[in-house]
Amino acid sequence: MSFGHQKVESRRLLLREIAQRGPLPRIDLAERTGISRATVTAITSDLLRGGLIAEVPRDTQPGEPARGRPRVDLKIAGQAHLVAGLKVSDASISLVLMDFQGTHLADHERSMPQARQSPDALATEIAAGLTRLAAQCGRNLTDISGVGVGISGIVDADHGLVYWSPSLDQRNVPLGKVLTNLLGIPAYVDNDANLVAMAELTFGLGKDHSDFIVITIESGVGMGMVLGGQIYRGTRGCGAEFGHTKVHLDGALCRCGQRGCLEAYVADYAIVREATSVGGISVTASTSQAVTAILAAARNGDPTARTVIDRASRMFAMGLANLVNIFDPELIILAGEQMQFDHLYADAVMEQMRKSIVEIDKPPPEVVIHKWDNLMWAQGAAAYALEFVQDTAVEALEDV
Amino acid sequence: MSFGHQKVESRRLLLREIAQRGPLPRIDLAERTGISRATVTAITSDLLRGGLIAEVPRDTQPGEPARGRPRVDLKIAGQAHLVAGLKVSDASISLVLMDFQGTHLADHERSMPQARQSPDALATEIAAGLTRLAAQCGRNLTDISGVGVGISGIVDADHGLVYWSPSLDQRNVPLGKVLTNLLGIPAYVDNDANLVAMAELTFGLGKDHSDFIVITIESGVGMGMVLGGQIYRGTRGCGAEFGHTKVHLDGALCRCGQRGCLEAYVADYAIVREATSVGGISVTASTSQAVTAILAAARNGDPTARTVIDRASRMFAMGLANLVNIFDPELIILAGEQMQFDHLYADAVMEQMRKSIVEIDKPPPEVVIHKWDNLMWAQGAAAYALEFVQDTAVEALEDV
Repeated sequence: MSFGHQKVESRRLLLREIAQRGPLPRIDLAERTGISRATVTAITSDLLRGGLIAEVPRDTQPGEPARGRPRVDLKIAGQAHLVAGLKVSDASISLVLMDFQGTHLADHERSMPQARQSPDALATEIAAGLTRLAAQCGRNLTDISGVGVGISGIVDADHGLVYWSPSLDQRNVPLGKVLTNLLGIPAYVDNDANLVAMAELTFGLGKDHSDFIVITIESGVGMGMVLGGQIYRGTRGCGAEFGHTKVHLDGALCRCGQRGCLEAYVADYAIVREATSVGGISVTASTSQAVTAILAAARNGDPTARTVIDRASRMFAMGLANLVNIFDPELIILAGEQMQFDHLYADAVMEQMRKSIVEIDKPPPEVVIHKWDNLMWAQGAAAYALEFVQDTAVEALEDV
Repeated sequence: MSFGHQKVESRRLLLREIAQRGPLPRIDLAERTGISRATVTAITSDLLRGGLIAEVPRDTQPGEPARGRPRVDLKIAGQAHLVAGLKVSDASISLVLMDFQGTHLADHERSMPQARQSPDALATEIAAGLTRLAAQCGRNLTDISGVGVGISGIVDADHGLVYWSPSLDQRNVPLGKVLTNLLGIPAYVDNDANLVAMAELTFGLGKDHSDFIVITIESGVGMGMVLGGQIYRGTRGCGAEFGHTKVHLDGALCRCGQRGCLEAYVADYAIVREATSVGGISVTASTSQAVTAILAAARNGDPTARTVIDRASRMFAMGLANLVNIFDPELIILAGEQMQFDHLYADAVMEQMRKSIVEIDKPPPEVVIHKWDNLMWAQGAAAYALEFVQDTAVEALEDV
């Protein structure tokens, strides 16, 4: 480990700490990080000179005498960088723009011509969305220092490689590179559920937890895992797969081509497929509208609809219970935007889950429900990019 | 973080490094740990004075001139401490004695009067086994600095608390405390499958891996997970539960009182239960002998036996595939001692597993089979205790 490397590491550590805990005084930084006061003074001076942090007058406590040298806290310099985040959905792209401090500056929703397209077509849509987003703040696309991209499917985040996504018409797309080349700014791609976990960790319900699971419920089921304060991605970059874990040997056919996947029972298409298979319920509308109709029928006592929804809920509870048995997390966050999946959040489902986990004489993990809109997904993507932008900014400081 | 705390941490780090990599020269320690050469010299001098490490002459490379000051490497001082490990099974306790370097000194197998007993009765059996083990080396029980205990069931290792075990007739047994009080030496209790993972990590097939899963196959199915080079235990101390994950909604009744657990399909009792349920196969011997007979019948083409074994194998493959989907590990180690579970290791089972994981254009995780005897379980328990004994020894050094 060279001295230069240690210096960059210490800068990175202090910048992160200021980002997470600031504004705070230098003395707190020394205590929190174990870095000596002298080194904290030297490094924060570098960060100040580089414009990454700023000094702010300390709020005086009521009753505190305001004598002597005015004391200052350190905070992130918001204007230092612009960071964008976006989430690719079937019908639209949701985008947000943040400053270096994570403050929301603008957002934009761009509808997509089609759900599934070529990498170049998707990249062009994204570029157009980002350009419009930057323009809302009177800025250019190239003023943005980094963009985080959340996409559903199987993604190797370290390499920005999308093995497979319902939004792309090809496998093994190096989407990070495609976007970075087209946009002229670095793009960081990850599975959308991982980015929801990132958002929960950074500014959501997971802020005070180091080990939790986020289950996202949209038209399919996604999962993000935070272990020891880090997103867990597995060794090939495709871990934390929940929707295609098997809940029935040789079970229902799944869109992935296998059988018995959780999604083959709980996804919207699975609900519609089953409900219409016996002829009692007919569907002429979109899948989403059809699910709404089936849920309404179930609530009104239609026995077929009730049986269909009941099985989906119980399969979901079984899948959740398996996660608890394997991970024993502190907290499970059920996140989603669509009211149509309310049945999966029901108390009865949680009760069923609790009955299917290994019983010990301690309370089961807390389960919280967090209803989100697409903007929150995009904010998770921006939080992901922000970490890289921080690191790049710290590395660039070397030459100051 | 006080200076004293930092010193203890550096001592701990260097002792671990010497234990894992030694014999090695001081300069390598400085390079590997990032601790300065001067500090390495000071700290290793403390460790030498405390008798925890020793200097050994460096092996001269062929052709290397043997001139100048004789160079020395550092290694663990084997005689510094005795450490024991044991595994509690249905019919016996297997014990090993190691020195501070992890060298095997003695082992002993003690048969148990009954599989399920009171905490005091089990502790008495363990004390007798340890006394006999120490005597084999001309030592006393109290010469042992620490003992690791592996037991099947659900264990909060941090507190030595056994929530439930088939070897105990009570729930919520503070077995660590019970043993420490009776033996007069510190006892460290963990789930036996975690200790197999520990053994694989310390001196087994996982030595060069930081993320792997160990599945133990005995009369039931256990799991140990290593993530980032650490045993993963979950937040309530009861994670990594595999045998009671559910593979069938409202499925076969399990001994745990729930339905559809993996064990309810693959454990020995489950195989016998199913095979005898249709009257074609009759069983008069022990469960273990019965499983052997059913497997032989399957091999000889008995259609009922084949159907029974086939489902168990496919359920096992499905459970494994779910773990791969969730964790995406580098390596899966299937560890067990009993040849009777050969069918679960079969190529066809592994093939079935590979067909049920999310397909990406990268090879699936490596699966290796490691046949073990009870002694290896006990060695894992000793490796677990050894870490605590190292830490205690380093803390005691403060007063030198």
